[in-house]
Amino acid sequence: MTDKLQKQLQFLIEVDKMKTILRQTILMDKSRQETDAEHSWHFALMALTLFEYAASDQIDINRVIRMALLHDLVEIYAGDTFAYDTAGLLDKEAKEIEAADKLFALLPEEQAHEFRALWEEFDQMETPDAMYAAAIDRLQPFISNYQTDGHTWVLHKVSADKVYQRMMPIKSALPELWFFVEDVIQDAIGKGHILCVPKHV
Amino acid sequence: MTDKLQKQLQFLIEVDKMKTILRQTILMDKSRQETDAEHSWHFALMALTLFEYAASDQIDINRVIRMALLHDLVEIYAGDTFAYDTAGLLDKEAKEIEAADKLFALLPEEQAHEFRALWEEFDQMETPDAMYAAAIDRLQPFISNYQTDGHTWVLHKVSADKVYQRMMPIKSALPELWFFVEDVIQDAIGKGHILCVPKHV
Repeated sequence: MTDKLQKQLQFLIEVDKMKTILRQTILMDKSRQETDAEHSWHFALMALTLFEYAASDQIDINRVIRMALLHDLVEIYAGDTFAYDTAGLLDKEAKEIEAADKLFALLPEEQAHEFRALWEEFDQMETPDAMYAAAIDRLQPFISNYQTDGHTWVLHKVSADKVYQRMMPIKSALPELWFFVEDVIQDAIGKGHILCVPKHV
Repeated sequence: MTDKLQKQLQFLIEVDKMKTILRQTILMDKSRQETDAEHSWHFALMALTLFEYAASDQIDINRVIRMALLHDLVEIYAGDTFAYDTAGLLDKEAKEIEAADKLFALLPEEQAHEFRALWEEFDQMETPDAMYAAAIDRLQPFISNYQTDGHTWVLHKVSADKVYQRMMPIKSALPELWFFVEDVIQDAIGKGHILCVPKHV
């Protein structure tokens, strides 16, 4: 076995840990928290299924799917930061860069560069591919929350302004989905699952 | 919201159940059984990472990744059949066709056809894409077993001839990986994790 193949197999063994990183989102049957591996799979399938609603015609769905598969790998070392955790988000970037240095170093150089570049592009949310990916990455837990009586919204007393802000990429990348997002938020406010005023007023 | 979009969202909600279908394979940290969603994600990432070793130059890796995302969806209704369960495999096909009828009917017609065609192609293992996909689908739990002291091999007293037979698609689709497969099997036999004679002699 070549040194190159050995490295790739070691990487594929290390990423098994994605099945042990728990997210705030729970499964729709409410049995437990979702894992990063499960979220990544759902994100990829969602991106594929809803691709026809992408506003931009500059998107390569195959690159988006690769981003979905790779986008949370750094959480193996950096952990999952809850999207509405303002304090946690402050040092998220530094922790994730350190994690990326460690994780992608497992791979042969060329592939490490290729995978890391896709992750960085996703993270920077600037290209059409990354903007569509970001929208789906937010839509996935949004739907899960809605299906579980607003589980994480209730748990963390999340306010509507924060949810609107977090979902904003959907408005530009998937405008036909925005009506659905607005309806869900209004319904969740009505049910008391999302606060209709900011938490700290 | 259009009827079409509503169907797609309903499908994306239904497939959350992939996170509750347990496989025989356990996580590499031995904490619990792996879910179908986690396996599908790992399969997709493994297919991408090892693509350079594909023997055929006729493979479209983007179609393979889609197969990985979709290949086990029918298990939402049909359940997971253990690869070495001879009795269970007998009615697997009929159960899975019934499940596919039910699941893909959730989608708009054109997309239902597209997704089902990919699943059928995977299942028939005849095209270069499907043969490469089948090899990775077998390699993924093979590596997990090796990393967990032969967990399912030991549990089900699996014999070497059965493992060789099951891994055969790797020999043709990923010949450079075959040496690794043979080494692992020999090592597992040495450790008593795989029986060196058939179970029923």
